[in-house]
Amino acid sequence: MAKRIFVTRREVFSSAHRLYNPAFTDDENELVYDKCNNYHGHGHNYVLEVVVEGEIDERTGYVIDLKVLKKIIIENVIRKVDHKHLNLDVDFMKDVIPTAENIAVKIWEQLVDKIPNGRLYKIRLSETENNYVEYFGE
Amino acid sequence: MAKRIFVTRREVFSSAHRLYNPAFTDDENELVYDKCNNYHGHGHNYVLEVVVEGEIDERTGYVIDLKVLKKIIIENVIRKVDHKHLNLDVDFMKDVIPTAENIAVKIWEQLVDKIPNGRLYKIRLSETENNYVEYFGE
Amino acid sequence: MAKRIFVTRREVFSSAHRLYNPAFTDDENELVYDKCNNYHGHGHNYVLEVVVEGEIDERTGYVIDLKVLKKIIIENVIRKVDHKHLNLDVDFMKDVIPTAENIAVKIWEQLVDKIPNGRLYKIRLSETENNYVEYFGE
Amino acid sequence: MAKRIFVTRREVFSSAHRLYNPAFTDDENELVYDKCNNYHGHGHNYVLEVVVEGEIDERTGYVIDLKVLKKIIIENVIRKVDHKHLNLDVDFMKDVIPTAENIAVKIWEQLVDKIPNGRLYKIRLSETENNYVEYFGE
Amino acid sequence: MAKRIFVTRREVFSSAHRLYNPAFTDDENELVYDKCNNYHGHGHNYVLEVVVEGEIDERTGYVIDLKVLKKIIIENVIRKVDHKHLNLDVDFMKDVIPTAENIAVKIWEQLVDKIPNGRLYKIRLSETENNYVEYFGE
Amino acid sequence: MAKRIFVTRREVFSSAHRLYNPAFTDDENELVYDKCNNYHGHGHNYVLEVVVEGEIDERTGYVIDLKVLKKIIIENVIRKVDHKHLNLDVDFMKDVIPTAENIAVKIWEQLVDKIPNGRLYKIRLSETENNYVEYFGE
Repeated sequence: MAKRIFVTRREVFSSAHRLYNPAFTDDENELVYDKCNNYHGHGHNYVLEVVVEGEIDERTGYVIDLKVLKKIIIENVIRKVDHKHLNLDVDFMKDVIPTAENIAVKIWEQLVDKIPNGRLYKIRLSETENNYVEYFGE
Repeated sequence: MAKRIFVTRREVFSSAHRLYNPAFTDDENELVYDKCNNYHGHGHNYVLEVVVEGEIDERTGYVIDLKVLKKIIIENVIRKVDHKHLNLDVDFMKDVIPTAENIAVKIWEQLVDKIPNGRLYKIRLSETENNYVEYFGE
Repeated sequence: MAKRIFVTRREVFSSAHRLYNPAFTDDENELVYDKCNNYHGHGHNYVLEVVVEGEIDERTGYVIDLKVLKKIIIENVIRKVDHKHLNLDVDFMKDVIPTAENIAVKIWEQLVDKIPNGRLYKIRLSETENNYVEYFGE
Repeated sequence: MAKRIFVTRREVFSSAHRLYNPAFTDDENELVYDKCNNYHGHGHNYVLEVVVEGEIDERTGYVIDLKVLKKIIIENVIRKVDHKHLNLDVDFMKDVIPTAENIAVKIWEQLVDKIPNGRLYKIRLSETENNYVEYFGE
Repeated sequence: MAKRIFVTRREVFSSAHRLYNPAFTDDENELVYDKCNNYHGHGHNYVLEVVVEGEIDERTGYVIDLKVLKKIIIENVIRKVDHKHLNLDVDFMKDVIPTAENIAVKIWEQLVDKIPNGRLYKIRLSETENNYVEYFGE
Repeated sequence: MAKRIFVTRREVFSSAHRLYNPAFTDDENELVYDKCNNYHGHGHNYVLEVVVEGEIDERTGYVIDLKVLKKIIIENVIRKVDHKHLNLDVDFMKDVIPTAENIAVKIWEQLVDKIPNGRLYKIRLSETENNYVEYFGE
């Protein structure tokens, strides 16, 4: 019987963002987002981990070739967000408040239909060495 | 529909401890705990990860503001254990053998009722770069 | 009631390997494995995490003494794979394509019956800082 | 005789920046800075290490109390750059192209006269896990 | 001509300590050492790097076999400090305030005459992920 | 006056090697290199840091564009050693015992004449998380 396994590819991207809800007043934005609400933005080296679950193909020993997964992540996520401003430059982040939570959900949506073998299981996104979020698509 | 996500805050604390069960003889303590039973104690930089699960608030993009979670962790855990001796200085560790397992359970108990949004999902506690434990409250 | 917890021991080993399926032609091997198919092999510092799940023994505060778990891992895995060629030197990897996926499954099989307290829950194996796999025994 | 030693304090800050020289044409900026020239900026978690050299005070065992050094770094650097846009929000970066090289030099200038014990020896600034610079004040 | 090179071996040890100068009053100790002065001590996972400088032996390709250097460090330092209280259990720390600075100097003294090939160049000692010291024997 | 600064680019490569001196008997090789002498080799994820020293160009804020330095390292080192066997596949390692010391010297020789701005200052090569060497070209 084929073995079920989870494989992960890690990629890093460097982006600017500003936490800001246009439906809030300036004072509310300040209150909710504090220093993350800085008008000109700030930035992070985001660490993205994409976890794919599937059965090991007995002929190759792979669920999915991680070089293939890497290309899918770069094409669909990294080249769109790396060295960009998440509020202003990224089509799939349009009209979304770029918290780590929302970025993870949006990256999930970018990738979920693009995985040729196995299925997308988890997006893990670290914003700093002390903060990270995990999203399972639900 | 609101998205369910897991958010994590990492904090570090530096404590002394001694593994020792007063119900054991000295020889039993030596046998069970070996070098961790050193009479004057030893210590670690513990790495604590507190994972909270919840739905993303669409107005803020947060489950819980991690700055709020940080304050809760510092108030209820870090200021009580950091630069302390876990056997001798910490109220919530009284009468507990301070293995990583027991520390994680006790940190869970300190935090489980204090999370204002979402619910506490996991405590992950690293004692060294080679040893860590995870507790889910059951 | 006893608390259920997950404890992890991390060990590192340095091995050579070559991704190659003898049932494939040379061209197929090249196509599937690309640079991982290099005739003379290449190598990694593999990072192995062995996760054991169980109830905390109230007398010791342990599920399993991590010094004991360490010895079991070294005896059954590390001394067989560290500073070895995974295709050529390791009995339990015989006739297996040494992808990270397959190595994790084989390490699981080496360890699953050797854990004296608790039960083996997960094998996590990192091949590089960007690639890792997780196997839960199913 | 007093012992000479080097002590280091590490702090992290998250900032946006854009590499851009107003004396260049747009094409030159694009050519020189490539993706770092993105109009709306991008960002990093910068890792700053401040190294102070001095003699160990025999009464305290310190060159400089690292809690004191931490406060000096936070007051003079971190609170000015963390969660800011380096081109637009930071007084001491005015009219400077915010390459890691120039940021390190400017941080040196912020700190060199503020160290009460010992002398500033080195600024080390990591922009990503793959890029860092070191400046010794010359 | 033989090439000059620097080789480093890293080891970790877990110890308790208390910063306290018996020549100070309690208030002075509190003022100088703050939370590091906790009566029952606290602790760290210290990361020790021992750097040896020398010429590459053309027959072996080594300055000094790092397995040999490892044994020297373990014999002379690690087995004396690991899982110990630095103020109370360690002969070579007797009558020394166990700041990272002083520990590094004392480790230098333990090792400087024990290196069979090359010469001891530097001791680097990390107390936490944010604090480290470097000592060159002067 | 132009500021002197040190800039570093980090790259990783995964290679197999065997420590073996053909001028030694088998017993001597076993004695000197122990498990590193395994007949079929073993391997590592080597972490290479290339440090370039130079003056900051006031027009660009760079000593050398790290994207340029990255390309030089990949062209002259990484594509030759990554996913290769250092004893058998690498032209510039021919007739060299592939200790970390010798690999660092040979990487220096590959790069020293290829740096268009600034000058090569140091090669730092980590073989494992516990072992690394540094070479300054002398």
